[in-house]
Amino acid sequence: MLEAAWQGLNPENAKHLVEQGIDCVKRMGLKVLVMEPRHVKLLMPLQGNENHIGIMYAGALFTVAEIPGGALHLTTFDVTKYVPVIKHMDIRFKKPAATDVTIEVELSPEEVDRVNRELEAQGKSDFVLHGEVKDAHGTVVAVTAATYQARKMA
Amino acid sequence: MLEAAWQGLNPENAKHLVEQGIDCVKRMGLKVLVMEPRHVKLLMPLQGNENHIGIMYAGALFTVAEIPGGALHLTTFDVTKYVPVIKHMDIRFKKPAATDVTIEVELSPEEVDRVNRELEAQGKSDFVLHGEVKDAHGTVVAVTAATYQARKMA
Repeated sequence: MLEAAWQGLNPENAKHLVEQGIDCVKRMGLKVLVMEPRHVKLLMPLQGNENHIGIMYAGALFTVAEIPGGALHLTTFDVTKYVPVIKHMDIRFKKPAATDVTIEVELSPEEVDRVNRELEAQGKSDFVLHGEVKDAHGTVVAVTAATYQARKMA
Repeated sequence: MLEAAWQGLNPENAKHLVEQGIDCVKRMGLKVLVMEPRHVKLLMPLQGNENHIGIMYAGALFTVAEIPGGALHLTTFDVTKYVPVIKHMDIRFKKPAATDVTIEVELSPEEVDRVNRELEAQGKSDFVLHGEVKDAHGTVVAVTAATYQARKMA
C-alpha cells in the first residue's frame, strides 16, 4: 500500500494523497491550498467539524496542524526512500475557531539540507515545524510545535 | 444547542453525548467503556482510522486522548453551570498503533475538591490530565498531558 502510494508522485497525486490518502482527514474535508517544495498551506473547513458548542473541534485543529509535516515531506524529500512519522505535538488552543481555518508552513533551504545530510548519513532525521492556525479573520486560534522524523522505508 | 445538550443529563445520555455529540468523534467511532464520576475509559477503533501505512492516524490518537477531559467534566462537575474547554495538549507518539486503543483516566477526590472550590470562587478552574494510550497488547503508543479549563457558561 505504501509503495503504491509513493510511486509516480507528482503535484496532482501528491495533493490527492494529502486530501484523500487518510480516511480521517478526508472525512474532515481538509483542502490543500498551496503545496510546493518547502512550502504548504492547508485549510480545514468548519462545516462538519463543529464541536458541541458550534466551534471547530480540537481534533480538527490538531489535524490541520499535523498534516503539514507529511505534506512537506512529500514535496521536499525523496519519497522513494523515506517516509515521515510524527513523534510529538505541542498544541496550544488560544481562541475558539468559528470559521474555516488555515495553516501555512515553510522549511528553509538550510533546514532541508540538514535533513538530507542526516538522512544520507543515518537513514533518519528529525525536523520541527512551528505553526499558527488562523481563522478567516487572521486571528491565531492555535499555536503548534510538531516534531517529525523522516526515516528510511522498512 | 449547548443548553439542550446539558439539560437532563444522566449516565445514558452522557455516554451518548460523548460518543455522538461531536460529528468528528462520531465518525471515528469512539466508544465509552467506563464513564463514572472521576473515572473514564474510552476506546478508539483502528477500523476507519488507519493512516497511509495502515496504523492509527495521529488525529484519532489525539482525539481519544482529548475527549476524557470533557467526559470527566460531564460526570464530575456541575454541568448546569460549567462547560469544559481544552487549553493545551502535549502528545508524544511512542509506538505505532496497529490495533484498537484505549485510554483510562482518573481524577482524585482532592483534585475535584480543588476545582470545585476554584469554580465557586472564580468561575473557572484549570485541571491537567496525564494519559497513556495503549494498544490491545497493553503497549503504550502515546503519552499525553492535557490542560482543560472548566468555566462558567456564558
